[in-house]
Amino acid sequence: MALKEVSVFAPATVANVGCGFDVLGFAVSHPGDMVVVRRVADKGICISDIRGDRERLPREVEKNTAGIAIAELMNKIETEDGLEIEIHKKMPLGSGLGSSAASAVAGVVAANILFEEPLSQTELLQCALKAEESITSNGHADNIAASLYGGFVLVRSYDPLDIVQLPTPVHLHCTILHPHIEIHTGEARRLLPKKILLEDATAQWGNLAGFISGLYQDDYDLIGKSIEDRIAEPVRTPLIPGFSAIKQAAMDSGALGSSISGSGPSIFALSDDPLTAGEIGRAMQRAARDADLDSTVYVSKVNEDGPRVIKRH
Amino acid sequence: MALKEVSVFAPATVANVGCGFDVLGFAVSHPGDMVVVRRVADKGICISDIRGDRERLPREVEKNTAGIAIAELMNKIETEDGLEIEIHKKMPLGSGLGSSAASAVAGVVAANILFEEPLSQTELLQCALKAEESITSNGHADNIAASLYGGFVLVRSYDPLDIVQLPTPVHLHCTILHPHIEIHTGEARRLLPKKILLEDATAQWGNLAGFISGLYQDDYDLIGKSIEDRIAEPVRTPLIPGFSAIKQAAMDSGALGSSISGSGPSIFALSDDPLTAGEIGRAMQRAARDADLDSTVYVSKVNEDGPRVIKRH
Repeated sequence: MALKEVSVFAPATVANVGCGFDVLGFAVSHPGDMVVVRRVADKGICISDIRGDRERLPREVEKNTAGIAIAELMNKIETEDGLEIEIHKKMPLGSGLGSSAASAVAGVVAANILFEEPLSQTELLQCALKAEESITSNGHADNIAASLYGGFVLVRSYDPLDIVQLPTPVHLHCTILHPHIEIHTGEARRLLPKKILLEDATAQWGNLAGFISGLYQDDYDLIGKSIEDRIAEPVRTPLIPGFSAIKQAAMDSGALGSSISGSGPSIFALSDDPLTAGEIGRAMQRAARDADLDSTVYVSKVNEDGPRVIKRH
Repeated sequence: MALKEVSVFAPATVANVGCGFDVLGFAVSHPGDMVVVRRVADKGICISDIRGDRERLPREVEKNTAGIAIAELMNKIETEDGLEIEIHKKMPLGSGLGSSAASAVAGVVAANILFEEPLSQTELLQCALKAEESITSNGHADNIAASLYGGFVLVRSYDPLDIVQLPTPVHLHCTILHPHIEIHTGEARRLLPKKILLEDATAQWGNLAGFISGLYQDDYDLIGKSIEDRIAEPVRTPLIPGFSAIKQAAMDSGALGSSISGSGPSIFALSDDPLTAGEIGRAMQRAARDADLDSTVYVSKVNEDGPRVIKRH
């Protein structure tokens, strides 16, 4: 018997990861977004409810990231069935944690299950990417791919789109401090220079190559020292009051490395055990408080599983 | 009983490897250089003979790459014993195959064995790097490290110097075409822009990350498509007549990927079996001939072993 309703949780993601600007991302266990898709009699798609967004997200399907992604899926499978979408935002907007990507991924995965999985992972990626492209100026795949596949992912190439799934060292934990300020991706992107020094680029790709090796070799030390960002972090830190002190607090508490998550303002730190990850969070939050910043801390393992079905019936 | 004479062969190397400008290199099985070190009564070091260089290399210890490297080693171990050095150049100079690095590495490895191995691999690297720094303006470690460690190596960072040894997929073969023209590293370096587009840099580090993943995953397809160089190859190809046709001939014959070796003029192509590697060599040589270029072709597996002791007594 056909399914009537499917609820899927898709995880928040850390993009860039210091050394991997625009090409590297990973998923965390929480926070994330849940999307419910439900068959209804009326043809087409409607968004029946969005919770947790303080009325900030558009209710129009064609302007909403989950709506666009699901519409793209239905277009691909050529169905005109009726669908109702409910979006449960369980993570902050504009936080640098891939909020729009999590909603888009949760939406397409839920809809794909409802329709008995007609699309492949790659096709789902394309649907979610379409949403990301529609609502931002550029549409980078790093958050989308990490949320959909789980673990660490590399966007090796955009044209053609080529995603490489990377291994996740088993003890790798992530602490995220989300300062209660908002940075718009567009604004953070405008700060980036069009050209960079070849010398900085060389250092950056040396570090990214080291980071990738560290993932394959379970070498936590190598992972940590490779998290160095010469490109985005230097120009974006002025957007985050107290950034240097917060990062320093993380490092002093045993972080392997730390940098800005996506375009910020969230700051992530990696560590190799859960106790340290918790300690890092407390230290980061104290440093944020000293900079007069309210904040939320999330501590979790790197999430290897990607989206999770919460309910289906 | 103390050794009197040690002969060591150190392999030629391919640096940059398309996507890994200044940070990636690998060793081939041949060509390479052999250095003989021999105890003599007179204190200090002298170069007694250099063969195969058509009288082009300096005979003064302090100007010769093997001489400088060995002097550095003797300095480190604080010996004033007498040493005689014989250098057998078995590879072309100025070819982009790490000729000076091979001599320096063969020299320090031979001397280290003669003195009963007082220095670690890292210390030998430092000695050879010192030589590379003295004779070139910059002193990059990619050729040195690949020749000394064998296989693929990543120079993650120069300050501090951090070398990461990478895995070598078992079927990986390398074809090298050496056109009989010479390019000076300094000249090839001056062509490089000081700044590059962020967009090109991002594509480059995406490819390098893909290449590294391919090595770990034995994914020959991923290795091949990641060998794309947006930085050095575009500005250096004018130095190599017929480059595009030679590269195209390699690709048409089944190469996984192809680019300039080091600063050229040698062109390398990777493949996943020996027959294809041979076929690629013939095709490249035909294309070179069409461009009025005499050339030598070397076909070998990627050399995982590094330097090889030829004789000790």
